[in-house]
Amino acid sequence: MAQNQVKIFDSTLRDGAQGQGISFSLEDKIKIVKALDEMQVDYIEAGNPGSNPKDMEFFKRLKDVHLENSSVVAFGSTRKSKINVEGDKNLKDLLSSEASTIVIFGKSWDFQVTDIIKTSLDENLNMIKDTIEYLCKNEREVIFDAEHFYDGYKANKEYAMATLRAAEEAGAQVIVLCDTNGGTLPQEIYDITRTVKTQVSIDVGIHSHDDMGMAVANSIMAVQAGAAQVQGTFIGIGERCGNANLSVIIPILKLKLGYEILNNIELTNLTKTSRYIAEICNMTLADENPFVGNSAFAHKGGMHIDAVTKAPKSYEHIEPELVGNKRRFLVSEVSGKSTILQEIKKVFPNISKDDNSVQKITDRLKELEYEGYQFEGAEGTVELVIRKIIGKYKPFFKLNHFKIIGEQPYGLEEFSSTAVINITVDGKNEMTAAEGEGPVNALDRAIRKALEVFYPELKQARLVDYKVRVLDSENATEAKVRVLIESTDGVESWSTVGVSRDVIQASWIALVDSIEYKLIKDIERKVKAYF
Amino acid sequence: MAQNQVKIFDSTLRDGAQGQGISFSLEDKIKIVKALDEMQVDYIEAGNPGSNPKDMEFFKRLKDVHLENSSVVAFGSTRKSKINVEGDKNLKDLLSSEASTIVIFGKSWDFQVTDIIKTSLDENLNMIKDTIEYLCKNEREVIFDAEHFYDGYKANKEYAMATLRAAEEAGAQVIVLCDTNGGTLPQEIYDITRTVKTQVSIDVGIHSHDDMGMAVANSIMAVQAGAAQVQGTFIGIGERCGNANLSVIIPILKLKLGYEILNNIELTNLTKTSRYIAEICNMTLADENPFVGNSAFAHKGGMHIDAVTKAPKSYEHIEPELVGNKRRFLVSEVSGKSTILQEIKKVFPNISKDDNSVQKITDRLKELEYEGYQFEGAEGTVELVIRKIIGKYKPFFKLNHFKIIGEQPYGLEEFSSTAVINITVDGKNEMTAAEGEGPVNALDRAIRKALEVFYPELKQARLVDYKVRVLDSENATEAKVRVLIESTDGVESWSTVGVSRDVIQASWIALVDSIEYKLIKDIERKVKAYF
Repeated sequence: MAQNQVKIFDSTLRDGAQGQGISFSLEDKIKIVKALDEMQVDYIEAGNPGSNPKDMEFFKRLKDVHLENSSVVAFGSTRKSKINVEGDKNLKDLLSSEASTIVIFGKSWDFQVTDIIKTSLDENLNMIKDTIEYLCKNEREVIFDAEHFYDGYKANKEYAMATLRAAEEAGAQVIVLCDTNGGTLPQEIYDITRTVKTQVSIDVGIHSHDDMGMAVANSIMAVQAGAAQVQGTFIGIGERCGNANLSVIIPILKLKLGYEILNNIELTNLTKTSRYIAEICNMTLADENPFVGNSAFAHKGGMHIDAVTKAPKSYEHIEPELVGNKRRFLVSEVSGKSTILQEIKKVFPNISKDDNSVQKITDRLKELEYEGYQFEGAEGTVELVIRKIIGKYKPFFKLNHFKIIGEQPYGLEEFSSTAVINITVDGKNEMTAAEGEGPVNALDRAIRKALEVFYPELKQARLVDYKVRVLDSENATEAKVRVLIESTDGVESWSTVGVSRDVIQASWIALVDSIEYKLIKDIERKVKAYF
Repeated sequence: MAQNQVKIFDSTLRDGAQGQGISFSLEDKIKIVKALDEMQVDYIEAGNPGSNPKDMEFFKRLKDVHLENSSVVAFGSTRKSKINVEGDKNLKDLLSSEASTIVIFGKSWDFQVTDIIKTSLDENLNMIKDTIEYLCKNEREVIFDAEHFYDGYKANKEYAMATLRAAEEAGAQVIVLCDTNGGTLPQEIYDITRTVKTQVSIDVGIHSHDDMGMAVANSIMAVQAGAAQVQGTFIGIGERCGNANLSVIIPILKLKLGYEILNNIELTNLTKTSRYIAEICNMTLADENPFVGNSAFAHKGGMHIDAVTKAPKSYEHIEPELVGNKRRFLVSEVSGKSTILQEIKKVFPNISKDDNSVQKITDRLKELEYEGYQFEGAEGTVELVIRKIIGKYKPFFKLNHFKIIGEQPYGLEEFSSTAVINITVDGKNEMTAAEGEGPVNALDRAIRKALEVFYPELKQARLVDYKVRVLDSENATEAKVRVLIESTDGVESWSTVGVSRDVIQASWIALVDSIEYKLIKDIERKVKAYF
């Protein structure tokens, strides 16, 4: 392969699925395959058809999915010891999957051969050889995953190399060195990979694990030592501490090491794709994830914010836009008045930095933060705090009363929730009720129903995200709760936050802010249109 | 310093505090300092007294805190340009803090000097020299943090080295090379650190950031290149993607590289300390954190579980107990019947693996997982599922009815929650009501009140943790919610889980399981005592 080429191999659907809490439906898997294909991933390891009938079903489904860029890969073990390849059910399944590329994993660590699969060192070499020859004869591209390679090499170098030679001679196109236990240091990875590269003539790949927090570094070191394939999972999920995180490795390879693994446009989809895949995995991408996390380019220290405003490279190693992310300035007690001033200017561009409301707003935000509010990612609420202190705010309605009834009725299995609400707008009273999936949903429906009588434009607004964070969980059911709500009206998205010991009260606070923010934005748009 | 010594420098309270969502009270900081001292951290960077009056107050408080192992460090900038050291308020504050060690950070990247702080290259060298001389004259140990060193070295090697020489000549005891933007590759870190080491005679340190997911690897490479101090934050918090994670670096240095940075006993406190510090930071430690995460030694793949049962080193790079963590086997669709059999044997040791209940339990758990349940970390619920299928279960009560009323009353600001409940135990009916901080708390109190009439032993049980996870948040307030409850009775702790679109219903399910689990355990203890 050309010097500046590295192939990206994603195992989200196989190794990734072995991470805690990960469980994919068939539809989930199809979505992930399509997303990976769009990101120009070279190989998608789609499952282990021999060990899991659901995986076999998925391979059949995949034949109807058109992929532009990716090859679908089936994963499986070398034949069982003392069994003929034709008699091995697992290999039969691998072939039935009709995947054009097959990854065969085999033991490269003598201890694993003798103590775990309990066979002889020679038989293991035959298992590798027979299996790969058999699959090559059946016209498959075969990649050999040398399991526990680095531990094996350190324990018994000759044997580890013998397993690679067996695979190469049998026709494997790529040999992937696996740091299966994740315990190998970067320099060791470099040295051993480099040595292997001088002793085989086919491509070498790397498959690292994050047990020492160095899977990304190990993958990079291996590439610098000559590896031409990197195996990992798109957002780093996998057994124990996870696999090498491809959403981190891809931009490093392209932007720092000059590998043309995908073009600039696709790279700008990196953040969006990572978040999309995280959602399918039923996870929230950690804010601090490199490149794609919400906070990867979020600056809080006052000095950092000043510097980045002058020159982004002063505290950013790349421009966030290259990977589809955004710079953010966090409002907090260390961000200083200049950050808060910038937030205020978004609403009131002409405010002077000496205006005494700047200090009042800063104090009020800190006070709320102390109570548990977090304004990072809740710009809707921040704007309302600013407006309320500056005096550019008038309530859109007066809440007279609400009552929520959650009931497990006599004799019935079903739980029901009802909310009753009574409000006043401009002297006119409106009372209504709504049912819901739970108390918060009932309340949400009831307040909208009541307000839409006066503000029909609210019909365009809907909630798209609802998050609950227990702040002091050791207080158990008495704990303070922070609710974060994201809303959209098709034109704009905004987030609001509420805090209380009562999840309904916290949700109410965030809901009201969300509704009032929408109504204010509508007025703003009219002002822009007519004035 | 001796070849096998590396000093650990923690900046949780300074650099860490610049991470999103981090906000420490004075008491929080004291707790963290004591925890770090117990972990034998050499230096604790406690704040920036010159820029923050709360930090100054903290330094004063610290004088009354007795520390066994750690030196308290104050952090601050070189003097401002064109100002005399005696006239620099910040330096005055650094001295008033009475910290015996001071970290001075200065610019080592020519671009930062000219474009950000806007002074001349020579004046910057004077700023470094004057500041450090002044502090040394005042009998402080001075550590010089060369900010942006690696970027500076790559842009203008001579100038970057000149800044280090200025610091060394002025009396600094350690020079710390900072990868402030987090964009330097491991091999570059190694090469540059090695070169610096040959050109200075004082100790060299490393301060890396995680913007490319390589802060740990970069710290390790720097140590291998001769660095004798590693700066980071205990659980990796910090600006943007965070600082180097010391809870990962410490075990690598000790267990993989043989540095005697703390003794074996303290190492076993690593996991506990990380979780403690995470709680103070109001964060949950990610399960997949290396060494200390809940899942660091959690095995899910059936083959992995089989292998680890035979020989832990087959899929673990170290023994979890060394760092105070535990091995776990996850019950899931890929763990196979053998794992579930092990779970069943915890309850019914004599069960045969061919018993048909094994398959039924496996199916039921998968069915519940599909609905959103997660049994990893909810062993209480798993036991109840097992008992219900095997037939070793009888309900402790019958729920006839409950009603929850959450109310924002007319004219009052206060929200109130009341739960009314009606149950039957052995033909006897009990109805009661309770108020609470919110609907779930009200329900929790009501059910306990009702049941304690029949089962007074429930008085010993209390909830210690309550977590809510929104599963499909894009369904907003209609989203499915998973509630995880941890309970204790002083003897044992157990966790239970509930899933529903209604947070009250989900909490109810988890609460009932929690109560019944406790009652079953009490019977078990009596059986052990008398039979």
